[in-house]
Amino acid sequence: MKRNFPLSKVYGLLEPGPVVLITTEHKGRANVMTLSWLTMMEFEPPLVGMALSEANFSFAALKASRQCVMNIPTVELAEAVVGCGNTSGRTLDKFTAFDLTARPARHVTPPLIAECYANLECRVTDARLLKRYNFFILEVLKAWIDPARKSPRTLHHAGKGCFAIDGEMITLPSKKK
Amino acid sequence: MKRNFPLSKVYGLLEPGPVVLITTEHKGRANVMTLSWLTMMEFEPPLVGMALSEANFSFAALKASRQCVMNIPTVELAEAVVGCGNTSGRTLDKFTAFDLTARPARHVTPPLIAECYANLECRVTDARLLKRYNFFILEVLKAWIDPARKSPRTLHHAGKGCFAIDGEMITLPSKKK
Repeated sequence: MKRNFPLSKVYGLLEPGPVVLITTEHKGRANVMTLSWLTMMEFEPPLVGMALSEANFSFAALKASRQCVMNIPTVELAEAVVGCGNTSGRTLDKFTAFDLTARPARHVTPPLIAECYANLECRVTDARLLKRYNFFILEVLKAWIDPARKSPRTLHHAGKGCFAIDGEMITLPSKKK
Repeated sequence: MKRNFPLSKVYGLLEPGPVVLITTEHKGRANVMTLSWLTMMEFEPPLVGMALSEANFSFAALKASRQCVMNIPTVELAEAVVGCGNTSGRTLDKFTAFDLTARPARHVTPPLIAECYANLECRVTDARLLKRYNFFILEVLKAWIDPARKSPRTLHHAGKGCFAIDGEMITLPSKKK
């Protein structure tokens, strides 16, 4: 199963720009949406900025509950990623439809997605840009990672269902985080 | 040379999370920094949110001039990407040090980097999160792309000089942008 992942290293999961699956829960109902519009804003505690259209069913859930989980899928979940992006929780139970397993989180009500290689439990800490930009600022409270997954290949959406899959990894000498 | 790229498609360049080279100009001096903390915030006109430490020499330049160019490098420029991230414009002319060619932009003073496959001319449109989060909101005014580069392989920083290079591209049927 998943192990704890240090909050100080969360930036390395998110700054590469992987597509993520956001889980929310509202009025007892869990939901999933696909999202690529997010950025790191602070290292530790990790702050993440995230924009999503208010047309999404998840928008109201996140606004009301102020909690979500950011689940990071790999290429094996590509169909679920597109499926969750093309459907609405208003009319579909996406967990059942796309074979995603909901597991309890530690600090928040929305579930972790078991099939994702990393999961970040988040709460909304700043909503001041919500009205103008639909932009949430989240704090990552807890991070989980699957230690068995040594080379997770995440997906980077380039529009209209086209994704770059992580290819070769390179490491150059760098003094920076 | 570069051709115009439609503003309506800019999200497909940025939402995959490539590392970018930000050029600024202040008091007649151009500079470059490496950055991964950015996200799309609106499709058209394209709005981009970007966080950078105020310790960066570029921070003051961007704050004062309210203009920058977002240059998107590919794997061929990996050494320049790390080099620009590990040095400061306070003491180094990075264009010379890393063999980057500055070309005039159309709408802004900071230069385009010729070697990058795409260039986005930007102006700061909202600075209200600057004090609290060092977060700039930029509008893309003009986008350029190199039509000769059919399969640009961008870099996704995963921390400490480790990058995932774009690998295989896949396209799944999707109704979404």
